[in-house]
Amino acid sequence: MITVREIAVREARPGDGAILMRTTFALADNHDMTDTFTATVEDFEFALFRPDPVIGALIAEIDGEAVGGVVWHRSFSTNRGKEIMYLEDISVLPEHRGKGVGMALMRKTAEVAMAKGYPSIYWLMMDWNEKGERFYQRLGAEVEAGMKICRLHGDALKALAQ
Amino acid sequence: MITVREIAVREARPGDGAILMRTTFALADNHDMTDTFTATVEDFEFALFRPDPVIGALIAEIDGEAVGGVVWHRSFSTNRGKEIMYLEDISVLPEHRGKGVGMALMRKTAEVAMAKGYPSIYWLMMDWNEKGERFYQRLGAEVEAGMKICRLHGDALKALAQ
Repeated sequence: MITVREIAVREARPGDGAILMRTTFALADNHDMTDTFTATVEDFEFALFRPDPVIGALIAEIDGEAVGGVVWHRSFSTNRGKEIMYLEDISVLPEHRGKGVGMALMRKTAEVAMAKGYPSIYWLMMDWNEKGERFYQRLGAEVEAGMKICRLHGDALKALAQ
Repeated sequence: MITVREIAVREARPGDGAILMRTTFALADNHDMTDTFTATVEDFEFALFRPDPVIGALIAEIDGEAVGGVVWHRSFSTNRGKEIMYLEDISVLPEHRGKGVGMALMRKTAEVAMAKGYPSIYWLMMDWNEKGERFYQRLGAEVEAGMKICRLHGDALKALAQ
């Protein structure tokens, strides 16, 4: 029997790029976005352990086996005038879902935010994700609809910059 | 007659906290969010000019008078495995709208993104902002609906962290 007590969450360390690539790819798969997934193990290692990183990551383990992860980054609220935390990815490998790993990851994320003095964590979710929304609301999160996301890249970005 | 040629956009410098507070407050006012606006001039000065800042800002001027601004921050795409640019605020003071200031700010933002090697800029907009959506689409941005924003702060954040 697996209980919540066996789940441990720790900060990422060098070498965790491989598990982070697996967890973030699993999330991209949920969102049907694997066709644009180009991140590599080296990308995560570089971004996490470069001087002056903008991101941080957490790894969840069950009996020492990595089963999930969080990637967050520093963000900024112009309303508050303060740095806040943006939760970029929270993901549990498919075969380990329903065991409380997501909850353990969210708790540790909140702990890191408090330790760093961030007054707020925010993240985006797809509006079809009803299960996710119920989960986040149980944690006390405010969930607000009515946003669109805009992206500018490739030729359009180049053309605008000229 | 005011023409686009008279608009100049430059990177923020110490002392611009005051104009950035005005432009970001004007945007909060558009979004009916001034009741939660607590940022101060000092907050912007600190965030922009601290060692290792996570944000950057641009100021638009007409004939030397500051009339608009952009605040962006470093972000990270787990799909790309790379840092990207998040456009937190783009705002023109109400009395200077309709003069091309927004376009000049977007062009300079794209230029900064290219100069820093960011492959992508993204931002959020309210889904009722049809005028904004047409503007962004004219720039070549992809606009995608179907997102919800989740926020965890105050007592809920503290409780989860325990």
